[in-house]
Parts: sequence; C-alpha cells; structure tokens
Amino acid sequence: MDFSVDERSRELTDRARTFLEGHVLPAEPVLDAELAAEPDRWGGWRVIADLQREARAQGLWNLFLPGDHGGAGLTNLQYASIAEVTGWSPRLAPVAFNCAAPDTGNMEVLNDFGTAAQKAQWLDPLLRAEIRSSFCMTEPDVASSDATNIGTRIRRDGDEYVVSGRKWWSTGAMNPDAAIFIVMGKTDPEADRHRQQSMILVPRDTPGVRIVRPLSVFGYDDRDHGGHAEIAFDDVRVPAENLIGDEGSGFAIAQARLGPGRIHHCMRAIGMGERALALMIARANERQAFGRSLADQGVVREWAAEARIQLEALRLLVLKTAWLMDTVGNRRAMTEIQAIKIAVPRAVQTIIDRAIQVHGGAGVSSDTPLAELYAGIRSLRLADGPDEVHLSSLGRAELRG
Amino acid sequence: MDFSVDERSRELTDRARTFLEGHVLPAEPVLDAELAAEPDRWGGWRVIADLQREARAQGLWNLFLPGDHGGAGLTNLQYASIAEVTGWSPRLAPVAFNCAAPDTGNMEVLNDFGTAAQKAQWLDPLLRAEIRSSFCMTEPDVASSDATNIGTRIRRDGDEYVVSGRKWWSTGAMNPDAAIFIVMGKTDPEADRHRQQSMILVPRDTPGVRIVRPLSVFGYDDRDHGGHAEIAFDDVRVPAENLIGDEGSGFAIAQARLGPGRIHHCMRAIGMGERALALMIARANERQAFGRSLADQGVVREWAAEARIQLEALRLLVLKTAWLMDTVGNRRAMTEIQAIKIAVPRAVQTIIDRAIQVHGGAGVSSDTPLAELYAGIRSLRLADGPDEVHLSSLGRAELRG
Amino acid sequence: MDFSVDERSRELTDRARTFLEGHVLPAEPVLDAELAAEPDRWGGWRVIADLQREARAQGLWNLFLPGDHGGAGLTNLQYASIAEVTGWSPRLAPVAFNCAAPDTGNMEVLNDFGTAAQKAQWLDPLLRAEIRSSFCMTEPDVASSDATNIGTRIRRDGDEYVVSGRKWWSTGAMNPDAAIFIVMGKTDPEADRHRQQSMILVPRDTPGVRIVRPLSVFGYDDRDHGGHAEIAFDDVRVPAENLIGDEGSGFAIAQARLGPGRIHHCMRAIGMGERALALMIARANERQAFGRSLADQGVVREWAAEARIQLEALRLLVLKTAWLMDTVGNRRAMTEIQAIKIAVPRAVQTIIDRAIQVHGGAGVSSDTPLAELYAGIRSLRLADGPDEVHLSSLGRAELRG
Amino acid sequence: MDFSVDERSRELTDRARTFLEGHVLPAEPVLDAELAAEPDRWGGWRVIADLQREARAQGLWNLFLPGDHGGAGLTNLQYASIAEVTGWSPRLAPVAFNCAAPDTGNMEVLNDFGTAAQKAQWLDPLLRAEIRSSFCMTEPDVASSDATNIGTRIRRDGDEYVVSGRKWWSTGAMNPDAAIFIVMGKTDPEADRHRQQSMILVPRDTPGVRIVRPLSVFGYDDRDHGGHAEIAFDDVRVPAENLIGDEGSGFAIAQARLGPGRIHHCMRAIGMGERALALMIARANERQAFGRSLADQGVVREWAAEARIQLEALRLLVLKTAWLMDTVGNRRAMTEIQAIKIAVPRAVQTIIDRAIQVHGGAGVSSDTPLAELYAGIRSLRLADGPDEVHLSSLGRAELRG
Repeated sequence: MDFSVDERSRELTDRARTFLEGHVLPAEPVLDAELAAEPDRWGGWRVIADLQREARAQGLWNLFLPGDHGGAGLTNLQYASIAEVTGWSPRLAPVAFNCAAPDTGNMEVLNDFGTAAQKAQWLDPLLRAEIRSSFCMTEPDVASSDATNIGTRIRRDGDEYVVSGRKWWSTGAMNPDAAIFIVMGKTDPEADRHRQQSMILVPRDTPGVRIVRPLSVFGYDDRDHGGHAEIAFDDVRVPAENLIGDEGSGFAIAQARLGPGRIHHCMRAIGMGERALALMIARANERQAFGRSLADQGVVREWAAEARIQLEALRLLVLKTAWLMDTVGNRRAMTEIQAIKIAVPRAVQTIIDRAIQVHGGAGVSSDTPLAELYAGIRSLRLADGPDEVHLSSLGRAELRG
Repeated sequence: MDFSVDERSRELTDRARTFLEGHVLPAEPVLDAELAAEPDRWGGWRVIADLQREARAQGLWNLFLPGDHGGAGLTNLQYASIAEVTGWSPRLAPVAFNCAAPDTGNMEVLNDFGTAAQKAQWLDPLLRAEIRSSFCMTEPDVASSDATNIGTRIRRDGDEYVVSGRKWWSTGAMNPDAAIFIVMGKTDPEADRHRQQSMILVPRDTPGVRIVRPLSVFGYDDRDHGGHAEIAFDDVRVPAENLIGDEGSGFAIAQARLGPGRIHHCMRAIGMGERALALMIARANERQAFGRSLADQGVVREWAAEARIQLEALRLLVLKTAWLMDTVGNRRAMTEIQAIKIAVPRAVQTIIDRAIQVHGGAGVSSDTPLAELYAGIRSLRLADGPDEVHLSSLGRAELRG
Repeated sequence: MDFSVDERSRELTDRARTFLEGHVLPAEPVLDAELAAEPDRWGGWRVIADLQREARAQGLWNLFLPGDHGGAGLTNLQYASIAEVTGWSPRLAPVAFNCAAPDTGNMEVLNDFGTAAQKAQWLDPLLRAEIRSSFCMTEPDVASSDATNIGTRIRRDGDEYVVSGRKWWSTGAMNPDAAIFIVMGKTDPEADRHRQQSMILVPRDTPGVRIVRPLSVFGYDDRDHGGHAEIAFDDVRVPAENLIGDEGSGFAIAQARLGPGRIHHCMRAIGMGERALALMIARANERQAFGRSLADQGVVREWAAEARIQLEALRLLVLKTAWLMDTVGNRRAMTEIQAIKIAVPRAVQTIIDRAIQVHGGAGVSSDTPLAELYAGIRSLRLADGPDEVHLSSLGRAELRG
Repeated sequence: MDFSVDERSRELTDRARTFLEGHVLPAEPVLDAELAAEPDRWGGWRVIADLQREARAQGLWNLFLPGDHGGAGLTNLQYASIAEVTGWSPRLAPVAFNCAAPDTGNMEVLNDFGTAAQKAQWLDPLLRAEIRSSFCMTEPDVASSDATNIGTRIRRDGDEYVVSGRKWWSTGAMNPDAAIFIVMGKTDPEADRHRQQSMILVPRDTPGVRIVRPLSVFGYDDRDHGGHAEIAFDDVRVPAENLIGDEGSGFAIAQARLGPGRIHHCMRAIGMGERALALMIARANERQAFGRSLADQGVVREWAAEARIQLEALRLLVLKTAWLMDTVGNRRAMTEIQAIKIAVPRAVQTIIDRAIQVHGGAGVSSDTPLAELYAGIRSLRLADGPDEVHLSSLGRAELRG
C-alpha cells in the first residue's frame, strides 16, 4: 500500500489549484453580477466562456473522460484530486474545465455506448463545449429510485420512436444551449425488470418537447448551470437511430453512468467541505465575541477537528473507490461507490452547516457561498436515490455476507 | 399539576385552527401567485390584507399582547397553543392575526416602555395593522450576540439624538409600509457594560436612513414579510423624545423584548414541526417504492416516531416556560427560555429535514413549503445569538448550581 | 394547565429526599462492604433491612401502589416525583421504600388480578417485605418482544397445571428470599395471538424449579437485588388455583403490568440522570486541567446544558404520561408510555456516559456509581422489548394517524 | 497511490487469521473456565501459555517491534493488518503473539531508550514472554492528560533514586508475573514544563512498592491480563542506573511511546468492530421476530451498512497513519494519530452498542463477548487523555492552519 500521489495527478492538481485561485475564485463575483443583471437568462454566461477558453488553453479540459476519444486519459484515481479542487467552486470550476454534470455523464454515455454518428453529432460538440446537454430520468409522479416505476414510454413506430412522458429535475435544461436531451423511458413494460428501459437522444428543438417550468432548490434557481427543468414530452418523434444501444439496455447504461457520476460528485463534495472548513477557519480567526476570538471557543475547535477527521477519512475512501474502479472495475466497486454516496454528502452537509453557524447571519445569506453550497449538498442526498435506499441496499448486501 | 387546557385557550385555539384550515392554507398559493406576479414588490400583499380583515372580524387579533391596551389579555400559556397553530403557515397565519414578528416585539416594547405620545403615534396604528415596523439591532461587522460589540452610536445633540451606524437583518424593513424602526445603539460607550445601550424610534422617512440592500436566506428573499434589510444610518436626526425609556436602558429593554420573542418563536416552531410531520405522513402513505408504501419502511416509521416524541416533550417544555413567565416572571424563567431557544429549533430542523427526505426532489423545491420552512427554522438557530452562546450560558449557570 | 406540584406529593417528595440524603446515600458504601464480604450471597443484606425498617417508620412505604389495599393511594402523578428521588440510588432507595422492581409489578398484578387467597398468601407478605418475588417472562431462545414467540407451556392436568420451559433475566430470582415466581407461558398455542398466554404463580421451592445460573450485566452480577437468573421449569406442578385470572389472560395482564412498570422505570431514570449530572458538576468544579477548572471548558458546559434541557423536557413528558394514566387510563396513555420508554433511557444513558467521561478513569471504575448506573440504564433499552420495537410501533401508529 | 496489500503483510495476516480461527477463538471458553475456577488469580493462565508456545512456533511473535532487536522488522503499515486480526479477541490474541499492551509499549521504550544492561535485564525476558510489565503513569488525584499535573516525585539520593507517589490504572500490575514497572514522575518540578518528568524502572519486589487494590471497568476486573492496579510508591529506592534516558526526558519518551501505542489500539479496535459486526450479522440472520428475520428489519440493515462504511473509512485512515509514521516519522504523523485516536474508538463503540442491541439480553451478559468489548473500547476513549483533549488540540492546530 502506498499513499503517495503519482506525478501526473499531482502536477495537474497543482495546475488546477493555481487556476482556481487565479481565475475561478475571482470570477465568482463576476458571475453574481451577470446573474443579477439578467434575471431571466438561463445560460450563455460570458464569464464561463472566458474561463473555458483559458482553461482549455492550459490543458485543463475534459479531464474526467477516460480513454482517448477527446479525453485526457486519466484514471479515476488521477482525476479524483483534480475533481476535488473543482468542488471549491462548484458553479464555475467544473464547467470551466468542461467537467460539469450532467454533461460529463452524458459524454460518457455517448463515448461508451454511442454510435459513430451519435458521437459525431453530439459528443464532439460537447467535448468542445459548443453545446450543453441534459439527462432526463427522474419523474414527478413516482419514486424514481425504483427504476421500475418509470412511466415515460418510448414506442417504436416505423423508422421512429415516439417518446411520451414527463420528467423533472432535468438539470441544465433551462439553458437554451442544452441542445440534446438523453431521455430514459420504457420500450417494453412487460420485459424483465431490468430490460424494460431504453435511452434515447431527443434534440431540444424536436416538436412536442415542452419546457414546463424551472424548479428551485431551496430558494435557488441555479441559473448559472441551466437550472432544473420540468419537461413534458408529448408524443415526441425522433429517428430510430437516436436510440442509444439496444432496446432494453437503458437500465444497464444508467448503472454504468451512475458509478462515475457518483464518484465525481463525492470528489467535488470533499472540495466543498474543504472550502467550507477554510471559510469557517478564516471567520473564526477574525471574529471576536465575549472578549476572545471565536477560534478560542471550544466548540469551534471541536468542529474544526471533526471536519478535518471526516474529510481525511472520507477522502481516502473516495480515493480507494476510484482505485477499485480503475483496477477491478465499476461493478466490483459497487459497495464502495454506495458507501461514499451515503457518507460523503452528509458529512460535508454537517461541515457546511457548522461553517454557516460560525458565520452567523452572513452564513445563510448570499455574502458567503455557504448557503448555496448547503443547498447543493443537501440535494445530493436525494439525487440518484435517497440515502436510505442506498443504506438499505448496502446493509442487505452486508447481512448476506 | 394539571395538563388539561383551559377553556378560553381551547376555544381560541379551535377557532384559530378552523381559520387556518378554512382561510390561511388555501391562501398560500394565492400569495405565491402575488409574489410571482410582482417580483420587485416587498409588501402590501392583497391576500394578507384580506386575511387580516377576516381574522379581526373573528376576534383573532393581537392575541399575543398581554394586558388591556389593545391586546387580548391572554396569558403566555393561553397564547401558546394559538401561536402553535400559526406556525403551520408562518408566512401568513401570524400576520393574519397581527401576531407576526418583529411587530409583536416592537408593540410590546412600546406597550411596556413607551410614553403616551409614542404609543399614540406608533403603537396604535401597529395594533390596527395600518403600518408595520422593524427592529434594528444586529450589525454586519460584529458578533451581535455580545451586545457590547454594538457599534451604532446614538449621540445627544440639543433636542435631538443623532444616530450613526449600520444594521442588517432588519426584518420587514424592505416593506415600504414598515414606517417605524426601533434602533439599538450606544449612548454611552464608557458606561457599565449593560448601561451603554439605548433604543430609539427612527421613522423610516427620516433623512439619512438608507436601505442598502435586501439579504436572502438560503436563496429566499422573504418578500412576503418585508424581507431582511441592510440599513445605513448616516447622522440621522430624531427628536429627543423618540428615545424609549432612559439613556442606558437599551440592554434591559432588549432583554425584556427577547423573552416573549423567543417563546413565540418556539411556539410557532412546534407548529412548523407538526406541519412538516403531517406532510411527511401524507407523503409516506401515498408514495410507493420497491413494492410497498414508504409508510411501511422502517426508517420512515422511526422518523415519524422520533418526531412525535420530540414534539410532545418540547411542547411541554414550551408550555411550562410560558407558565413560569406567567407565574414567576420572565426573569426567573430565563433558564427555561434559554432551554427552549436551543432545543426547539434544532429538533424541528431535523423533523423538517426528514420530511424533505421523504419527499425527494419535491422536498427541496417550492412544490411543498418544506424547504422554505427549513430556511426559516435554520435561521432561528442564529437569530438572537447562536445556539452555542446559549448553551454555554445555560451550562455555566448549571455548573454554578 | 398548571405546573405546580400538589401539596401531598411535595411533602412526600421532600421527606423522601431527606431520607435519601440522610440514610440512603450514606448506606451505599455499607452495602458495598457487605457485598465484598460475602461474595457468594444473593440477598438478605442487613443494610437493606435497616433502611426498610426506618423508611416504613417514616411512612415511606409501598408508595407505588394505587388504591387502599396496603398502598399509599397516591396517583401516578403524585408518585412520580418520589420515584424520581429513588432513582438517585437505584440499588438502595427503591427497595428501602418497598418500591423496587420486580416486586412492585408483581404486587400490582396480585392486587389487580389475584384472588383473595392469592393476595393473602403472597401479596400481604410482599407488602410487608417479608418475602421477595420474581417475574419470569423472557426466554433465552426467542425474541421475547414478540409475545407469540414464548415457548414455555402451562398445561392443565386435573387439579394442577404443569409448567415446562426455560426463562432468563428473571430479576431477583437468585435471592433465596424470592419465594414466589410469576411465570408467563402458553396455555393454548392454538388460540388467538393474544389469548394464548396465561400467568401462574410458582413457589420457588416447587419440585422441578431449577435455578440454572446467574446472568451478568456488563460485568455486574447485581447481587444487591438478587441478580438475574436463568431458570428451568421441568414439569413443575402447581395447584390449578395458582393461575392468575383466566386461561388466556396472560397477555392482557402483562400489558397491564407493563404500563406502570415502564413509567416507574422512567421516573427513576430521570433521577439517575439527575444524579449523574450532579456528579458531573461536582467533578467539573473540583478538577483542574491545563490551567483551568473543567467547569470552564466549553464542552463540559455544553454537556451540562444539554443534560439540563433533556431532563426538564423528559420529566414533563413522564409527568404528563402519569397524569394521562390517572385521568384517561393506561390504555389511552399508550402512545406516551411508549414515547417515554424510548426517549428517557437513551437520554439518561448519554448523560451518564458524559459524566463518566468527565470523571476519567474513575468514571468506569467502582469509585463512582456511574459505570453501574450506565449498565442499568443500558439494559433498560432492551428490557420489555428493544427501543426499535417501540419506535416501529409508535411510528406505525403515527403514520396511521 | 496504491491500495493493494504487500505480500509479506498479506501472508502474515493470513497466517494470523488462521491462527485466530483455529486456536484463539476456541480458547476463549477455556479462558473463561480458568477464570471462573480461580477467582483470586491474576495471571499465569495456562491457556495463554499454550497459545504463546504455538504462536511462537508459527513465527507469529513480537510482530509489533520494528527493527531487528528481537522484533519482526515489520513496518507499521505491515503490522497494521495483523494487529487488526488480533482485535477480534483482545483478551487472547495480542498476548498470544506477545503483542499485548502495555508490554509492547514498554518493550519499545526499552528498545529505543534503554541501556544495554536495561535491555539485557528486562527487554530480553519480555521478548521471550518470561515476564510481564506495567506502565505507571496515571494518578488518581489529578487530570493526567495534563502531564504537568503529575505528582509522583523521583528524587536523586546518592547512587539511588527515591520514588514517592501514587499511581492507578497500572494495567497488568495485579499479575505477579509483572516483574517490572516503568514509572513516570518528576525529577525537577521547577524545570520547563516538558523537562520536569523522568521515567524509571522499578522492579515489582522493591521495598515500598505496595499494590493497593485492583480497579474494575464496568464491573470487569480484567484478570485475564493482570487487571488494573492502584499502586503506592512509598520512598521506593532503586539504583540510579534504573533511570531511562536522562533526567527530564520522561515527557519525550512518553510521547514517543504514545504514537505506536495509539495506532496499535486503533488497529485492534478496527478488529473489535469487525467482530461485533460479524456477531450482529450472525444474530440478525438467525433470530426471528414479528414474522421475519431481524436481518429483514430496516434498522438492522441500516446499522450493518453504517458499520461497514465506518470501518472501511477508518481503516484507511489508520493505514495511512501507519504509512506516514513509516515514511515521515511519528512526529509528522501527529495530526493523523490524533484523528484516529478520536475517531476509531467512538465509531467502534457505536458498532458494539448496536450489536448488543441486536442481541437483546444476551448482548449485555457474558454469553457474547460484546459487553466486555464495549467496556474495553469505552475505556479507550479515556486512556491517554479523553477524546475532548485531543479534539481540542487537533482543532487548535487546524484553526492555526
């Protein structure tokens, strides 16, 4: 066992951190100003385009993508430390490096399961950040953590498929630049439980696609990354070749997509926790109450220590998970992926909550990034199935032995 | 000891509950529509005026105010159950009954410490809900839980006082109807620790009063109740008779104001918790996942049970605190007031958080009131000093014996 | 609602407290010496007999028993505060007042369901503390929280019943003075779920009764109150008139026994928590580390405050439960009884654990009562069904509405 | 970074596990029988001697000791997995491999700081398990986590040192085979804070050494490993050459001893947690309640999952700490050592507590090892300073940046 970081990862992580400090953090207030100036706009932010141009020039681009089709060819383990850096500024850093969800997951799906034509049409422009995308899986009327609940239908009709249903929490879809939607639905509701679903590419401008409304997370509309849309698909017709993989392969593709998606979220979450802790520390050292610095209060010390312990232990678990994905494959890393999916967001939630507490009123306002980080991490405990579903599944496996 | 509820309180509580169900809950979507239709407006909502008219006609008016100067003359214990009912809809029910913070606290200050002229000018219109008010205590640059930190100055200059300083989290102050501000500042920074501060009435339209900006709470602007303002007081001159009580009495008045303020918050918080639990139960019974109702999942049962236990135990502690305030006075109820100030918001926060979790994505969106309730209760753990200050103070008293 | 304590309860509670401080606490080291001197003895402690004589003379006797058959006729609410006092010294105070489990529950069963002959033979000497008793319900081979699991058989054979089975955690049964066992078993395994069980009186010296071994709790053998026995009943024959109530009434009698049993446990547990807190406070004030008293450490203050809050809130819930039992009956107080059964022991467990922590090594040793209090309260979370069974049941009821 | 285990460690760990399963676990009831048969005996257990003979023959001997003076020369990282295996049976496995505290720490002190003569006289027989030893640091009258509190004096008098003071929690010292005590005391109370203490070798049979009494831990006397003694040193005279290192080096030696001591405790604690989890799983699968296996109850699944997550994350943190000690030295691994000292025992305590809960009454009795494991892990949270001292120190360092 060897806990030292390999050279390439260290070098890229250092470069990413320099970029974060030099370009991304200073751009945060610029983004806020753009958002305030155009309250009805959902994308096309100049500050993001500027960051992307610079990051790409520095080789900080598409680092998430394994293999050589436009990606950097990093292992999950190598990418992990870089992803953590981007978690310090989740609104700007991931997108600056073209490593932001849901585009990353969508690019992976196209890379792994797409036809050459699908890649040319959608993957290539995504890799160049010319377009953005959305992933349409969750539905408003059912518990989507149970995939058999999905109600959207994808019916074959001659050379076309007809998509009918309603999705929500389609992240990024409010952004007009999100040109392509990957939609999950049932091609065969009578098939075996895990062979009922398929995924299909639905261009945004297809007739019958209707953006119903944006959703908010706590009070945030998340316009910086295209918000979260409720979308109606009313008998939407797309060419049959838009299907990704075979009919019935939707569940398997979703599973394949989830592993990397979850670990990326967890890597970034560690970075969010580190930023919250850094903010807590800075505040505690600067603020006085009852004749001494907050940093001298026992409770603040305890919180700082607990945060450090949690971040160290969970970072290692994330890194080991990445290493397992690299060495034995995503499927055999399932237990660990589930473990970090449960453990990381809630630990980071606590860290952010305490950082808020140390900041007093400033902590819940927009004067610090903490409240918005909180809203983001809180949602992670629901995305891709609530914690409780994963705990139950992990526990069942453990009890089976 | 007798745990039965007295007749008057029971009758008023029943009436309040009927009003809540018949008028307030149906008005929630109406308020949402008004807010959406006028995104730059901070007050004057028609739906609130309508509710107030009806509530007043039903005698559900100013119930919070002890004594007979326009109040209902209820004891704290009698009012407690009614206040709990209003917590079910914190945006609408308290204001409908003219029992909303910060007006309640401000009316109490005027009632208890105001001159006849001050009462005539400000208390009477507040009791009739013709105007609203704000309380300006917290400052952006210091830890306000330590009152000696307050930087705002109130200097005597002939027949006037000159107020200079900066306040924030002045709740309600974005609403143009908030005609009067009660401002806390130092008249004598050299006096004894608790004799430095005074309170003074500053009409909104006084020259030098400048609303700097609204603050948000987890993305919410709280426009329904006039938001939270940062306010600059640049050499604001008011007549000397605007001082409330004597010079140096500010700390004592603040303490007197805090007791009832805190217990009202806690009473309402119990109602918030009950609503969250009711929503959790309704959702759990209606939603299916993995072949059974969420209500059949062990974890949801556990959450419902824990919520019930917490609400029952803490309600009793709130009621006993009210009874102590009624029988031995606010000062001798300090331990209990501190105890509920700490215990109630965090317990209710957990209940709301779990209700969110049971709702999945809907829970963090605006499709349920949960996320906004969460933001509200979370802020309570900071308002009037963070939990930790109260824990430390309560613990010190306990250790002293 | 009225939180003042009635005169009779206050007077008796004061007397009990005076007795505790004057007689019981000083007797603790005497008991330790007796226990150390006779390591194989399980009962007949002189110090207990002395305390009983004195307590009885002071009228502090059988206070737990409602009604007038030898009891004090107190309501549950009146008894509650006295029971709390006895919790300060659970090894000596309850037994000193003849208010110790399992005798109290057994006396209640005889009082409520026994025949005149059963009362004369067993209840009267128990009320005079001439004998002691045990309750034989839990079995080693099954989850006894589910009464249908019970394996002990009680078969009618002519004028006799034949009892066959194995019990454990029969508290007090190692004491040779425990002359009578109340045994729960199945008279009709084919009957309805709650009509299968019966209770029967089995004198200790009946042939076929075999004390298998004592059980320990953590490392404690609890010889002070007769330990906990595993007992084999090998075709034990008793007269048919030893049956308590009718055949099939065992479950109902058990339920009737459990309500008061649980509330008594909770009342005493509050007293255990108060003692642990008092010990924590004394230690914190006397011990120095790193240049200041432990009482000046933030974390100790926080623990003292949390303990105070928990004890105040839960005491009220226990008292309200007692009041409900008095006013609407045990059955309609079931929710509250379940709530305190869950909430009180675990809260007190935390308080004791923290008191241990403040004491350092002394806390886990026998130099303070804390470790033994811990073992006692920890076991309460298992006795009469584990917390989780009660949480699930309470949650189900709550979800049903 | 590479999470694969190196060959030598894997091979030794496998061998240790085979030994555990084949020899140690079957020896547990044998030890219980020996303990029961001789209630006044504190050492010299035949079953331990048998295990030691066999383990030594298999090369499972002194694995803890780095370097080549009788040790196996393993790195901390290599030893970690083996130590974890021994945690499954803390009463027997560590001592079987001659890797039990406090002997390990004492051997390290002698190995690192002892003279050739001290090594020949005490280290060699310890390495051969011919004698045992004790470490006398903690004192009954002061908070020993603050080393400046230590009251024991070590005064030079000609060719001798005179030791006066009182120690307790001297683990192993009740065993007559514990031939040598390492005693910490002050040679110069006027020196700098960290130069006041020295360590000295005091043979058990020196005049003036008086074993005052054994201490218990939650009712356990821990006779299997020599108990915990309170010892009076009444003007005990030893030759001056018994001093370890220089006068004033006691604090530094203690610090050097603590690092490995803590990580060994944590490694074993992981194994204790794994055993508790294994017992929980076995019980949950075998026990039925309310018509289904405990393993099908949501709460048991949740506990199993949480335990798995905690054990995986904390094991990694322990391993990384070992790796840091190996690569950058104990001093630069201080943060991590402190982190695991805090985090591991409390996580394992929760796991054991839940395993107890799943076992019902059996869990608190001696029918499973759980209650005794609990007592052991609970004490770890106090040994070498309570958690809170470490949290505060770690937090202070974190806040300093």
